[in-house]
Amino acid sequence: MNPFRVGRWAQSGGKTNGQLDPGPGPVDRVVVQLDDGADMILYDGGRAPNPRRVRIYLAEKGITVPLEPVDLGALQHKSADFAAINPVQRVPALLLDDGSVIAESIAICRYFEALHPEPPLFGVGARAIAEVEMWNRRLELNLLFPIAHVFRNTHPAMRELEVPQVPAWAEANKPRIMAFLDILDRALKDRPFAAGDRYTVADITGLVAVDFLKPAKLMVPETCANVRRWHAAVSARPSASG
Amino acid sequence: MNPFRVGRWAQSGGKTNGQLDPGPGPVDRVVVQLDDGADMILYDGGRAPNPRRVRIYLAEKGITVPLEPVDLGALQHKSADFAAINPVQRVPALLLDDGSVIAESIAICRYFEALHPEPPLFGVGARAIAEVEMWNRRLELNLLFPIAHVFRNTHPAMRELEVPQVPAWAEANKPRIMAFLDILDRALKDRPFAAGDRYTVADITGLVAVDFLKPAKLMVPETCANVRRWHAAVSARPSASG
Repeated sequence: MNPFRVGRWAQSGGKTNGQLDPGPGPVDRVVVQLDDGADMILYDGGRAPNPRRVRIYLAEKGITVPLEPVDLGALQHKSADFAAINPVQRVPALLLDDGSVIAESIAICRYFEALHPEPPLFGVGARAIAEVEMWNRRLELNLLFPIAHVFRNTHPAMRELEVPQVPAWAEANKPRIMAFLDILDRALKDRPFAAGDRYTVADITGLVAVDFLKPAKLMVPETCANVRRWHAAVSARPSASG
Repeated sequence: MNPFRVGRWAQSGGKTNGQLDPGPGPVDRVVVQLDDGADMILYDGGRAPNPRRVRIYLAEKGITVPLEPVDLGALQHKSADFAAINPVQRVPALLLDDGSVIAESIAICRYFEALHPEPPLFGVGARAIAEVEMWNRRLELNLLFPIAHVFRNTHPAMRELEVPQVPAWAEANKPRIMAFLDILDRALKDRPFAAGDRYTVADITGLVAVDFLKPAKLMVPETCANVRRWHAAVSARPSASG
Protein backbone atom coordinates (compact mmCIF):
# COMPACT_ATOMS: atom_id res chain seq x y z
CA MET A 1 0.00 0.00 0.00
CA ASN A 2 1.17 3.45 -0.83
CA PRO A 3 2.16 5.08 2.47
CA PHE A 4 1.15 8.44 1.06
CA ARG A 5 -2.42 7.20 1.10
CA VAL A 6 -2.07 6.67 4.85
CA GLY A 7 -2.87 10.04 6.31
CA ARG A 8 -2.11 11.61 9.61
CA TRP A 9 -5.62 12.92 9.30
CA ALA A 10 -8.44 11.36 11.19
CA GLN A 11 -11.23 9.63 9.34
CA SER A 12 -14.47 11.33 10.10
CA GLY A 13 -16.53 8.47 8.83
CA GLY A 14 -17.93 10.61 6.08
CA LYS A 15 -17.74 13.88 4.28
CA THR A 16 -16.34 16.86 6.13
CA ASN A 17 -16.97 19.63 3.63
CA GLY A 18 -13.33 20.57 3.52
CA GLN A 19 -12.89 20.80 7.29
CA LEU A 20 -10.40 18.66 9.10
CA ASP A 21 -11.71 16.34 11.73
CA PRO A 22 -9.10 16.25 14.49
CA GLY A 23 -10.03 12.93 16.09
CA PRO A 24 -10.18 10.25 17.18
CA GLY A 25 -7.12 8.50 15.71
CA PRO A 26 -5.04 7.78 12.69
CA VAL A 27 -6.71 5.91 9.87
CA ASP A 28 -6.29 5.64 6.13
CA ARG A 29 -7.14 9.15 5.18
CA VAL A 30 -9.73 11.77 5.84
CA VAL A 31 -12.50 12.03 3.30
CA VAL A 32 -13.12 15.60 2.41
CA GLN A 33 -15.86 16.87 0.22
CA LEU A 34 -15.71 20.27 -1.35
CA ASP A 35 -18.68 21.92 -3.00
CA ASP A 36 -18.09 20.02 -6.21
CA GLY A 37 -18.08 16.69 -4.43
CA ALA A 38 -14.41 15.96 -4.84
CA ASP A 39 -12.55 14.05 -2.20
CA MET A 40 -8.98 15.20 -2.22
CA ILE A 41 -5.63 15.31 -0.48
CA LEU A 42 -3.03 18.01 -0.95
CA TYR A 43 0.50 16.65 -0.62
CA ASP A 44 2.31 19.47 1.09
CA GLY A 45 5.96 20.31 1.60
CA GLY A 46 6.16 22.48 4.69
CA ARG A 47 8.33 25.55 4.30
CA ALA A 48 9.24 25.03 0.64
CA PRO A 49 8.06 27.92 -1.56
CA ASN A 50 5.74 26.08 -3.94
CA PRO A 51 3.61 24.28 -1.33
CA ARG A 52 3.33 27.61 0.46
CA ARG A 53 2.04 29.27 -2.71
CA VAL A 54 -0.90 26.88 -2.77
CA ARG A 55 -1.58 27.21 0.97
CA ILE A 56 -1.69 31.02 0.70
CA TYR A 57 -3.93 30.74 -2.34
CA LEU A 58 -6.35 28.44 -0.50
CA ALA A 59 -6.38 30.75 2.53
CA GLU A 60 -7.22 33.73 0.31
CA LYS A 61 -10.08 31.75 -1.25
CA GLY A 62 -11.33 30.42 2.09
CA ILE A 63 -10.93 26.82 0.94
CA THR A 64 -9.77 24.10 3.34
CA VAL A 65 -8.17 20.96 1.94
CA PRO A 66 -6.58 18.22 4.03
CA LEU A 67 -2.82 18.40 3.88
CA GLU A 68 -0.63 15.35 3.77
CA PRO A 69 2.93 16.24 4.78
CA VAL A 70 5.77 15.12 2.57
CA ASP A 71 9.12 15.29 4.36
CA LEU A 72 11.45 16.92 1.84
CA GLY A 73 14.37 16.79 4.26
CA ALA A 74 14.00 13.00 4.38
CA LEU A 75 13.77 12.97 0.55
CA GLN A 76 10.28 11.47 0.79
CA HIS A 77 9.32 13.22 -2.47
CA LYS A 78 12.11 11.30 -4.20
CA SER A 79 10.70 7.93 -3.13
CA ALA A 80 9.11 5.45 -5.54
CA ASP A 81 5.86 5.77 -3.62
CA PHE A 82 5.69 9.48 -4.21
CA ALA A 83 6.79 9.07 -7.82
CA ALA A 84 3.62 7.04 -8.30
CA ILE A 85 1.70 10.17 -7.30
CA ASN A 86 3.82 12.70 -9.17
CA PRO A 87 6.45 11.27 -11.55
CA VAL A 88 8.23 14.62 -11.54
CA GLN A 89 8.73 14.09 -7.78
CA ARG A 90 7.83 17.59 -6.72
CA VAL A 91 5.39 19.00 -4.22
CA PRO A 92 2.68 20.11 -4.00
CA ALA A 93 0.40 17.59 -5.68
CA LEU A 94 -3.36 17.30 -5.39
CA LEU A 95 -4.86 13.82 -5.29
CA LEU A 96 -8.45 13.74 -6.52
CA ASP A 97 -11.09 11.23 -5.53
CA ASP A 98 -10.73 9.22 -8.73
CA GLY A 99 -7.03 8.68 -8.01
CA SER A 100 -5.84 11.18 -10.61
CA VAL A 101 -3.37 13.85 -9.60
CA ILE A 102 -2.96 17.52 -10.41
CA ALA A 103 0.64 18.62 -9.87
CA GLU A 104 2.30 22.03 -10.29
CA SER A 105 1.32 24.78 -7.85
CA ILE A 106 -0.32 27.07 -10.36
CA ALA A 107 -2.23 24.19 -11.98
CA ILE A 108 -3.64 23.32 -8.55
CA CYS A 109 -4.61 26.94 -7.97
CA ARG A 110 -6.28 27.14 -11.40
CA TYR A 111 -8.24 23.99 -10.60
CA PHE A 112 -9.72 25.63 -7.50
CA GLU A 113 -10.15 28.93 -9.35
CA ALA A 114 -12.35 27.20 -11.94
CA LEU A 115 -14.43 25.54 -9.20
CA HIS A 116 -14.59 28.59 -6.93
CA PRO A 117 -14.13 31.78 -8.97
CA GLU A 118 -14.66 34.20 -6.07
CA PRO A 119 -12.66 36.17 -5.12
CA PRO A 120 -10.86 36.10 -8.48
CA LEU A 121 -7.10 35.68 -8.08
CA PHE A 122 -6.23 35.17 -11.77
CA GLY A 123 -7.95 38.28 -13.16
CA VAL A 124 -11.28 38.79 -14.87
CA GLY A 125 -11.45 39.85 -18.53
CA ALA A 126 -8.79 39.46 -21.23
CA ARG A 127 -6.60 42.37 -20.18
CA ALA A 128 -6.55 41.54 -16.47
CA ILE A 129 -6.06 37.82 -17.13
CA ALA A 130 -3.04 38.66 -19.29
CA GLU A 131 -1.60 41.13 -16.79
CA VAL A 132 -1.90 38.71 -13.88
CA GLU A 133 -0.27 35.95 -15.95
CA MET A 134 2.48 38.33 -17.10
CA TRP A 135 3.35 39.42 -13.58
CA ASN A 136 3.01 35.98 -12.07
CA ARG A 137 5.44 34.69 -14.69
CA ARG A 138 7.80 37.63 -14.38
CA LEU A 139 7.91 37.02 -10.64
CA GLU A 140 8.57 33.34 -11.21
CA LEU A 141 11.12 33.58 -14.00
CA ASN A 142 13.04 36.59 -12.72
CA LEU A 143 12.69 36.23 -8.96
CA LEU A 144 11.39 32.96 -7.50
CA PHE A 145 13.27 30.61 -9.83
CA PRO A 146 16.59 32.50 -9.75
CA ILE A 147 16.40 32.68 -5.94
CA ALA A 148 15.73 28.93 -5.91
CA HIS A 149 18.81 28.46 -8.09
CA VAL A 150 20.90 30.42 -5.59
CA PHE A 151 19.51 28.50 -2.63
CA ARG A 152 19.74 25.05 -4.21
CA ASN A 153 23.26 25.55 -5.55
CA THR A 154 24.78 27.00 -2.38
CA HIS A 155 22.92 25.83 0.73
CA PRO A 156 24.49 22.88 2.58
CA ALA A 157 21.01 21.46 3.27
CA MET A 158 20.51 21.03 -0.48
CA ARG A 159 23.61 18.96 -1.08
CA GLU A 160 21.67 15.71 -1.51
CA LEU A 161 18.85 17.27 -3.54
CA GLU A 162 20.81 19.40 -5.99
CA VAL A 163 23.46 17.11 -7.42
CA PRO A 164 25.86 18.53 -8.35
CA GLN A 165 25.60 21.93 -6.74
CA VAL A 166 27.02 24.55 -9.09
CA PRO A 167 28.00 27.61 -7.01
CA ALA A 168 29.03 29.54 -10.14
CA TRP A 169 25.44 29.31 -11.38
CA ALA A 170 24.22 30.69 -8.05
CA GLU A 171 26.61 33.62 -8.39
CA ALA A 172 25.47 34.27 -11.97
CA ASN A 173 21.88 34.60 -10.77
CA LYS A 174 22.46 37.09 -7.98
CA PRO A 175 22.80 40.23 -10.14
CA ARG A 176 19.74 39.16 -12.17
CA ILE A 177 17.68 38.98 -9.00
CA MET A 178 18.81 42.45 -7.97
CA ALA A 179 18.10 43.86 -11.44
CA PHE A 180 14.57 42.46 -11.36
CA LEU A 181 13.91 43.85 -7.88
CA ASP A 182 14.60 47.28 -9.38
CA ILE A 183 12.13 46.61 -12.19
CA LEU A 184 9.55 45.43 -9.67
CA ASP A 185 10.16 48.50 -7.54
CA ARG A 186 9.40 50.80 -10.46
CA ALA A 187 6.25 48.81 -11.30
CA LEU A 188 5.01 49.07 -7.70
CA LYS A 189 5.51 52.82 -7.56
CA ASP A 190 2.00 53.62 -8.70
CA ARG A 191 -0.02 50.62 -7.63
CA PRO A 192 -0.66 48.58 -4.51
CA PHE A 193 -0.29 45.07 -5.92
CA ALA A 194 1.99 43.21 -8.30
CA ALA A 195 -0.48 43.10 -11.19
CA GLY A 196 -2.50 46.24 -10.48
CA ASP A 197 -5.18 47.38 -8.07
CA ARG A 198 -6.19 43.95 -6.86
CA TYR A 199 -4.45 41.25 -4.89
CA THR A 200 -3.82 38.27 -7.19
CA VAL A 201 -1.79 35.09 -7.51
CA ALA A 202 1.10 37.28 -8.69
CA ASP A 203 1.29 38.74 -5.17
CA ILE A 204 1.42 35.22 -3.76
CA THR A 205 4.33 34.31 -6.01
CA GLY A 206 6.06 37.59 -5.18
CA LEU A 207 5.59 37.20 -1.42
CA VAL A 208 6.90 33.65 -1.43
CA ALA A 209 9.84 34.69 -3.60
CA VAL A 210 10.82 37.64 -1.40
CA ASP A 211 10.56 35.49 1.73
CA PHE A 212 12.81 32.95 0.00
CA LEU A 213 15.58 35.56 -0.28
CA LYS A 214 16.55 34.99 3.35
CA PRO A 215 17.47 31.28 3.14
CA ALA A 216 19.33 32.18 -0.07
CA LYS A 217 21.24 34.76 2.03
CA LEU A 218 19.98 37.70 -0.02
CA MET A 219 17.75 40.66 0.80
CA VAL A 220 15.65 43.41 -0.75
CA PRO A 221 17.91 46.47 -1.00
CA GLU A 222 16.98 49.56 1.04
CA THR A 223 16.60 51.43 -2.25
CA CYS A 224 13.60 49.28 -3.22
CA ALA A 225 11.17 51.13 -0.98
CA ASN A 226 8.12 50.20 -3.04
CA VAL A 227 8.95 46.50 -2.91
CA ARG A 228 9.36 46.80 0.86
CA ARG A 229 6.03 48.61 1.24
CA TRP A 230 4.26 46.03 -0.91
CA HIS A 231 5.93 43.13 0.90
CA ALA A 232 4.85 44.50 4.28
CA ALA A 233 1.27 44.84 3.02
CA VAL A 234 0.94 41.34 1.58
CA SER A 235 2.75 39.86 4.59
CA ALA A 236 0.17 41.44 6.90
CA ARG A 237 -2.70 39.51 5.32
CA PRO A 238 -3.85 36.49 7.37
CA SER A 239 -3.10 34.22 4.39
CA ALA A 240 0.64 34.96 4.63
CA SER A 241 1.02 32.74 7.67
CA GLY A 242 0.18 29.78 5.44
CA MET B 1 10.99 58.28 -31.47
CA ASN B 2 11.10 54.69 -30.43
CA PRO B 3 12.43 52.73 -33.41
CA PHE B 4 10.33 49.78 -32.37
CA ARG B 5 7.26 51.80 -33.20
CA VAL B 6 8.54 52.10 -36.79
CA GLY B 7 7.33 48.93 -38.40
CA ARG B 8 8.38 47.07 -41.47
CA TRP B 9 4.69 46.64 -42.02
CA ALA B 10 2.82 48.77 -44.47
CA GLN B 11 0.13 51.11 -43.30
CA SER B 12 -3.13 50.19 -44.91
CA GLY B 13 -4.71 53.49 -44.10
CA GLY B 14 -7.17 51.89 -41.81
CA LYS B 15 -8.21 48.76 -40.06
CA THR B 16 -7.15 45.47 -41.55
CA ASN B 17 -9.00 42.99 -39.36
CA GLY B 18 -5.84 41.19 -38.43
CA GLN B 19 -4.57 40.72 -41.97
CA LEU B 20 -1.29 42.20 -43.11
CA ASP B 21 -1.45 44.68 -45.94
CA PRO B 22 1.67 44.12 -48.08
CA GLY B 23 1.94 47.55 -49.69
CA PRO B 24 2.63 50.19 -50.71
CA GLY B 25 5.61 51.14 -48.57
CA PRO B 26 7.08 51.42 -45.13
CA VAL B 27 5.36 53.74 -42.71
CA ASP B 28 5.08 54.01 -38.97
CA ARG B 29 3.21 50.82 -38.29
CA VAL B 30 0.32 48.91 -39.63
CA VAL B 31 -2.95 49.36 -37.84
CA VAL B 32 -4.55 46.05 -37.24
CA GLN B 33 -7.94 45.53 -35.81
CA LEU B 34 -8.96 42.24 -34.33
CA ASP B 35 -12.53 41.40 -33.48
CA ASP B 36 -12.29 43.24 -30.21
CA GLY B 37 -11.09 46.41 -31.89
CA ALA B 38 -7.54 46.31 -30.57
CA ASP B 39 -4.70 47.68 -32.63
CA MET B 40 -1.59 45.74 -31.81
CA ILE B 41 1.98 44.81 -32.70
CA LEU B 42 3.68 41.59 -31.69
CA TYR B 43 7.40 42.07 -31.13
CA ASP B 44 8.86 38.86 -32.43
CA GLY B 45 12.22 37.17 -32.07
CA GLY B 46 12.63 34.91 -35.07
CA ARG B 47 13.85 31.41 -34.24
CA ALA B 48 13.96 31.82 -30.47
CA PRO B 49 11.62 29.36 -28.71
CA ASN B 50 9.31 31.76 -26.90
CA PRO B 51 8.36 33.94 -29.88
CA ARG B 52 7.74 30.73 -31.80
CA ARG B 53 5.36 29.50 -29.09
CA VAL B 54 3.15 32.53 -29.67
CA ARG B 55 3.34 32.25 -33.48
CA ILE B 56 2.27 28.59 -33.36
CA TYR B 57 -0.52 29.47 -30.95
CA LEU B 58 -1.81 32.23 -33.24
CA ALA B 59 -1.64 29.90 -36.26
CA GLU B 60 -3.67 27.27 -34.39
CA LYS B 61 -6.25 29.91 -33.52
CA GLY B 62 -6.31 31.40 -37.02
CA ILE B 63 -5.35 34.83 -35.71
CA THR B 64 -3.04 37.12 -37.67
CA VAL B 65 -1.16 39.84 -35.83
CA PRO B 66 1.49 42.07 -37.40
CA LEU B 67 4.96 41.02 -36.33
CA GLU B 68 7.73 43.47 -35.63
CA PRO B 69 11.10 41.71 -35.76
CA VAL B 70 13.50 42.20 -32.88
CA ASP B 71 17.06 41.19 -33.81
CA LEU B 72 18.24 39.13 -30.86
CA GLY B 73 21.62 38.50 -32.51
CA ALA B 74 22.21 42.26 -32.58
CA LEU B 75 21.06 42.46 -28.92
CA GLN B 76 18.20 44.74 -29.97
CA HIS B 77 16.10 43.36 -27.08
CA LYS B 78 18.75 44.61 -24.68
CA SER B 79 18.48 48.20 -25.96
CA ALA B 80 16.98 51.03 -23.93
CA ASP B 81 14.32 51.44 -26.61
CA PHE B 82 13.13 47.89 -26.17
CA ALA B 83 13.38 48.15 -22.39
CA ALA B 84 10.77 50.89 -22.66
CA ILE B 85 8.46 48.26 -24.17
CA ASN B 86 9.40 45.37 -21.90
CA PRO B 87 11.63 46.21 -18.93
CA VAL B 88 12.52 42.54 -18.59
CA GLN B 89 14.04 42.81 -22.12
CA ARG B 90 12.60 39.60 -23.46
CA VAL B 91 10.59 38.74 -26.52
CA PRO B 92 7.83 38.29 -27.42
CA ALA B 93 5.87 41.33 -26.26
CA LEU B 94 2.46 42.47 -27.45
CA LEU B 95 1.90 46.21 -27.81
CA LEU B 96 -1.75 47.17 -27.48
CA ASP B 97 -3.38 50.20 -29.02
CA ASP B 98 -3.35 52.18 -25.78
CA GLY B 99 0.42 51.80 -25.54
CA SER B 100 0.32 49.17 -22.82
CA VAL B 101 2.26 45.97 -23.27
CA ILE B 102 1.58 42.33 -22.49
CA ALA B 103 4.84 40.38 -22.17
CA GLU B 104 5.49 36.69 -21.46
CA SER B 105 4.50 34.17 -24.14
CA ILE B 106 1.81 32.43 -22.18
CA ALA B 107 0.30 35.71 -20.99
CA ILE B 108 0.03 36.80 -24.63
CA CYS B 109 -1.62 33.49 -25.52
CA ARG B 110 -4.05 33.80 -22.61
CA TYR B 111 -4.98 37.31 -23.78
CA PHE B 112 -6.00 35.96 -27.18
CA GLU B 113 -7.64 32.91 -25.59
CA ALA B 114 -9.92 35.18 -23.56
CA LEU B 115 -10.82 37.19 -26.68
CA HIS B 116 -11.14 34.20 -29.01
CA PRO B 117 -11.95 31.07 -27.01
CA GLU B 118 -12.32 28.74 -30.03
CA PRO B 119 -10.66 26.34 -30.52
CA PRO B 120 -9.79 26.08 -26.83
CA LEU B 121 -6.05 25.60 -26.28
CA PHE B 122 -6.01 26.00 -22.48
CA GLY B 123 -8.70 23.43 -21.66
CA VAL B 124 -12.38 23.76 -20.80
CA GLY B 125 -13.67 22.87 -17.34
CA ALA B 126 -11.74 22.71 -14.07
CA ARG B 127 -10.10 19.33 -14.64
CA ALA B 128 -8.95 20.03 -18.20
CA ILE B 129 -7.79 23.55 -17.32
CA ALA B 130 -5.67 22.09 -14.52
CA GLU B 131 -4.27 19.26 -16.66
CA VAL B 132 -3.29 21.60 -19.49
CA GLU B 133 -1.62 23.95 -17.01
CA MET B 134 0.13 21.04 -15.29
CA TRP B 135 1.56 19.66 -18.52
CA ASN B 136 2.42 23.04 -19.97
CA ARG B 137 4.37 23.79 -16.81
CA ARG B 138 5.97 20.37 -16.62
CA LEU B 139 7.12 20.82 -20.20
CA GLU B 140 8.48 24.27 -19.39
CA LEU B 141 10.14 23.50 -16.07
CA ASN B 142 11.55 20.09 -16.93
CA LEU B 143 12.22 20.41 -20.65
CA LEU B 144 12.12 23.85 -22.28
CA PHE B 145 13.88 25.76 -19.50
CA PRO B 146 16.59 23.13 -18.82
CA ILE B 147 17.28 22.90 -22.58
CA ALA B 148 17.54 26.69 -22.65
CA HIS B 149 20.02 26.49 -19.77
CA VAL B 150 22.14 24.03 -21.75
CA PHE B 151 22.01 26.13 -24.91
CA ARG B 152 22.66 29.46 -23.21
CA ASN B 153 25.52 28.18 -21.07
CA THR B 154 27.38 26.34 -23.83
CA HIS B 155 26.67 27.82 -27.25
CA PRO B 156 29.29 30.27 -28.57
CA ALA B 157 26.53 32.46 -30.05
CA MET B 158 25.24 33.09 -26.51
CA ARG B 159 28.51 34.38 -25.12
CA GLU B 160 27.34 38.00 -25.08
CA LEU B 161 23.83 37.21 -23.86
CA GLU B 162 24.58 34.75 -21.07
CA VAL B 163 27.25 36.41 -18.95
CA PRO B 164 28.94 34.49 -17.52
CA GLN B 165 28.30 31.20 -19.25
CA VAL B 166 28.44 28.38 -16.68
CA PRO B 167 29.15 25.12 -18.55
CA ALA B 168 28.89 23.09 -15.34
CA TRP B 169 25.26 24.20 -15.01
CA ALA B 170 24.60 23.05 -18.58
CA GLU B 171 26.06 19.65 -17.73
CA ALA B 172 23.98 19.39 -14.56
CA ASN B 173 20.82 19.90 -16.62
CA LYS B 174 21.45 17.25 -19.26
CA PRO B 175 20.49 14.18 -17.18
CA ARG B 176 17.38 16.01 -15.90
CA ILE B 177 16.26 16.58 -19.48
CA MET B 178 16.73 12.91 -20.32
CA ALA B 179 14.89 11.81 -17.16
CA PHE B 180 11.93 13.99 -18.05
CA LEU B 181 11.82 12.70 -21.63
CA ASP B 182 11.28 9.24 -20.11
CA ILE B 183 8.44 10.57 -17.96
CA LEU B 184 6.91 12.25 -21.00
CA ASP B 185 7.28 9.06 -23.01
CA ARG B 186 5.30 7.08 -20.43
CA ALA B 187 2.61 9.78 -20.32
CA LEU B 188 2.26 9.73 -24.12
CA LYS B 189 1.88 5.97 -24.25
CA ASP B 190 -1.91 6.05 -24.01
CA ARG B 191 -2.81 9.40 -25.46
CA PRO B 192 -2.17 11.45 -28.59
CA PHE B 193 -1.34 14.82 -27.02
CA ALA B 194 0.66 16.15 -24.10
CA ALA B 195 -2.34 16.92 -21.88
CA GLY B 196 -4.80 14.34 -23.15
CA ASP B 197 -7.01 13.79 -26.19
CA ARG B 198 -6.85 17.32 -27.50
CA TYR B 199 -4.09 19.49 -28.91
CA THR B 200 -3.36 22.28 -26.44
CA VAL B 201 -0.79 24.91 -25.54
CA ALA B 202 1.14 22.12 -23.76
CA ASP B 203 1.82 20.56 -27.17
CA ILE B 204 3.11 23.90 -28.40
CA THR B 205 5.52 24.17 -25.48
CA GLY B 206 6.58 20.55 -25.97
CA LEU B 207 7.13 20.93 -29.71
CA VAL B 208 9.20 24.07 -29.29
CA ALA B 209 11.20 22.42 -26.50
CA VAL B 210 11.96 19.26 -28.48
CA ASP B 211 13.00 21.32 -31.52
CA PHE B 212 15.28 23.31 -29.21
CA LEU B 213 17.21 20.12 -28.34
CA LYS B 214 19.15 20.33 -31.60
CA PRO B 215 20.83 23.74 -31.08
CA ALA B 216 21.59 22.52 -27.55
CA LYS B 217 23.29 19.49 -29.18
CA LEU B 218 20.90 17.01 -27.59
CA MET B 219 18.30 14.66 -29.01
CA VAL B 220 15.30 12.51 -28.10
CA PRO B 221 16.64 9.00 -27.40
CA GLU B 222 15.52 6.17 -29.71
CA THR B 223 13.93 4.53 -26.66
CA CYS B 224 11.38 7.36 -26.38
CA ALA B 225 9.19 6.08 -29.21
CA ASN B 226 6.05 7.75 -27.91
CA VAL B 227 7.74 11.14 -27.73
CA ARG B 228 8.96 10.66 -31.29
CA ARG B 229 5.50 9.68 -32.54
CA TRP B 230 3.90 12.66 -30.79
CA HIS B 231 6.62 15.02 -32.05
CA ALA B 232 6.10 13.86 -35.63
CA ALA B 233 2.36 14.41 -35.30
CA VAL B 234 2.52 17.93 -33.87
CA SER B 235 5.31 18.85 -36.31
CA ALA B 236 3.06 17.86 -39.22
CA ARG B 237 0.44 20.45 -38.33
CA PRO B 238 0.57 23.60 -40.51
CA SER B 239 1.06 25.71 -37.36
CA ALA B 240 4.48 24.11 -36.73
CA SER B 241 6.12 26.08 -39.53
CA GLY B 242 5.46 29.24 -37.48
